[in-house]
Amino acid sequence: MHDHHHDPSACDHDHGPKHIYIYSPASAIRDKAAFKRGIARLKALGHEVEVDPDAQAVHTRFAGDDATRLAAIHRAAASGADVALITRGAYGLTRILPGIRYKAVAKAIAGGMKFVGLSDFTAFQNAVLAQTGATTWAGPALISDFGVEGEPDDIMMACFDDLLTGHGEGTGWTLGREMPLPDGRPAVPEVYVKKATLWGGNLAVLAGLVGTPYFPQIKGGILFVEDVSEHPYRIERMLTQLLHAGVLAQQKAVVLGQFTGYRLAPHDKGFKLQSVVDWLRTQIKAPVLTNLPFGHVDTKVLLPVGASVSLSVEGRDALLYWGHQH
Amino acid sequence: MHDHHHDPSACDHDHGPKHIYIYSPASAIRDKAAFKRGIARLKALGHEVEVDPDAQAVHTRFAGDDATRLAAIHRAAASGADVALITRGAYGLTRILPGIRYKAVAKAIAGGMKFVGLSDFTAFQNAVLAQTGATTWAGPALISDFGVEGEPDDIMMACFDDLLTGHGEGTGWTLGREMPLPDGRPAVPEVYVKKATLWGGNLAVLAGLVGTPYFPQIKGGILFVEDVSEHPYRIERMLTQLLHAGVLAQQKAVVLGQFTGYRLAPHDKGFKLQSVVDWLRTQIKAPVLTNLPFGHVDTKVLLPVGASVSLSVEGRDALLYWGHQH
Repeated sequence: MHDHHHDPSACDHDHGPKHIYIYSPASAIRDKAAFKRGIARLKALGHEVEVDPDAQAVHTRFAGDDATRLAAIHRAAASGADVALITRGAYGLTRILPGIRYKAVAKAIAGGMKFVGLSDFTAFQNAVLAQTGATTWAGPALISDFGVEGEPDDIMMACFDDLLTGHGEGTGWTLGREMPLPDGRPAVPEVYVKKATLWGGNLAVLAGLVGTPYFPQIKGGILFVEDVSEHPYRIERMLTQLLHAGVLAQQKAVVLGQFTGYRLAPHDKGFKLQSVVDWLRTQIKAPVLTNLPFGHVDTKVLLPVGASVSLSVEGRDALLYWGHQH
Repeated sequence: MHDHHHDPSACDHDHGPKHIYIYSPASAIRDKAAFKRGIARLKALGHEVEVDPDAQAVHTRFAGDDATRLAAIHRAAASGADVALITRGAYGLTRILPGIRYKAVAKAIAGGMKFVGLSDFTAFQNAVLAQTGATTWAGPALISDFGVEGEPDDIMMACFDDLLTGHGEGTGWTLGREMPLPDGRPAVPEVYVKKATLWGGNLAVLAGLVGTPYFPQIKGGILFVEDVSEHPYRIERMLTQLLHAGVLAQQKAVVLGQFTGYRLAPHDKGFKLQSVVDWLRTQIKAPVLTNLPFGHVDTKVLLPVGASVSLSVEGRDALLYWGHQH
């Protein structure tokens, strides 16, 4: 599922220890043991781990009030770290988007910093893309991924290591097995897309940005979405917003990650996630790919939100390729 | 809570039996007994009840496939009924919005037909407003309101009767009791707004229309919203979309209906619906009113979505007034 599409001789990669900045831009930490395990694990990998002074702040459900969380983001941007990694997502970024100093974030990214996270972090990532065009990384969070009891997922770990060392150049995965379309065409045709902007993230958070200055205006892009604890009818309703807003028609491909944690009901009477996928394919011309290993699951790849990428699909083999992101 | 602001001598009201058209534009009927009770109750009130031939259709979770439900809407519009009442909401309208013949709906409304419903029906109502400017009614649904065991809510029944007879001219209610703002101002000042477009409905459905051609562009309006089974953080996230999209700043008032059916968690640590209300008041200048008797509750008034209304607030007494809507 995780492919290393790189040529080690192509450039100098830095395998030394990295400086990782840990901060909490959204919800308060609930599992302190997992927080500590995550930090210990990153240190055990040889990295210098810097923890934001307010990483464990609590203000109702948030990791500090709005000003506290904004200051944490800006300290992360000013830290000079190689990677700024969120402790967790949940909820908290959407409401502080107007207070983020996007130029400072973009400057840090231009200097080589990689902002990494997911879920609620989708708001930050797409706002940064919309406001500055800079690339951030959809990937793990400290607590849910590095803070697990036992060993973290090895694909996640390998992808994260690729990010740190500069080896990451793409990700391959196997599409879900699907029936042909009603008109006989294969569910997923051969696809080859070159130089398209990859963007997206959590569907609920992304759909919640439509119509705001924080929603990227991406034409000819590749949109990926995932979600957790959303019934397929709600997934469909959110995709419908992107559809009716004209967003989906402008993409060269729509890539569905993992949709997990929902429960079908007897009255769904056969309506399920595949129904939504089938319906979506009747609504847009661009290919709809499934099974991207990204979402609220252990096995997650890292994806450059805002980067120019290529996409190829042959049979059930899909490959997103972005080359070096230095 | 329900005031009759009318002068019976002002015009001729028709107290004869009405023609009520029952149809299913969204989710399939699950409670057939309630469906029958609702029809029997409307008939017992002396009305002519016409049931759409596909009112009980079932296609997975929907009341028939998309074409079936669109045809039902168009039959309702062509029925010449006084009132077109949905059996229920849930989910189904958003995805068929592009297929609705809005001119036919507006023509029926111009001819005196009143489309009534709520929840998922918010998509239809706001799309009709966006596309044609015509007024529909946020109000009861057949099954949840007329189909109850025992007696339907008397305020809902009185408001529905007002709609049928042309007596409805407004609704009064008592605002929630609230603490003064941090700066000492009263939570709700005296308000008087004249001739503003009333619009809104279910918050999740409405927020799901932002950025699409089905979202009304209302300036100087009065926006009302309600929701069910949405945690306050999600209510806040949806309001944030309307805020960041510039919608809230353009309204003369924001009126919150009933938000029900959610559960707070220990980690909310004091974050609750009132936190969202307090926060919202720091974000917009327009007054934020609470406790409108509308939502997923038994006691619901009828509200003309798209009509020009006046609003006054003195102390905790609020009044929405729209005069005659013939």
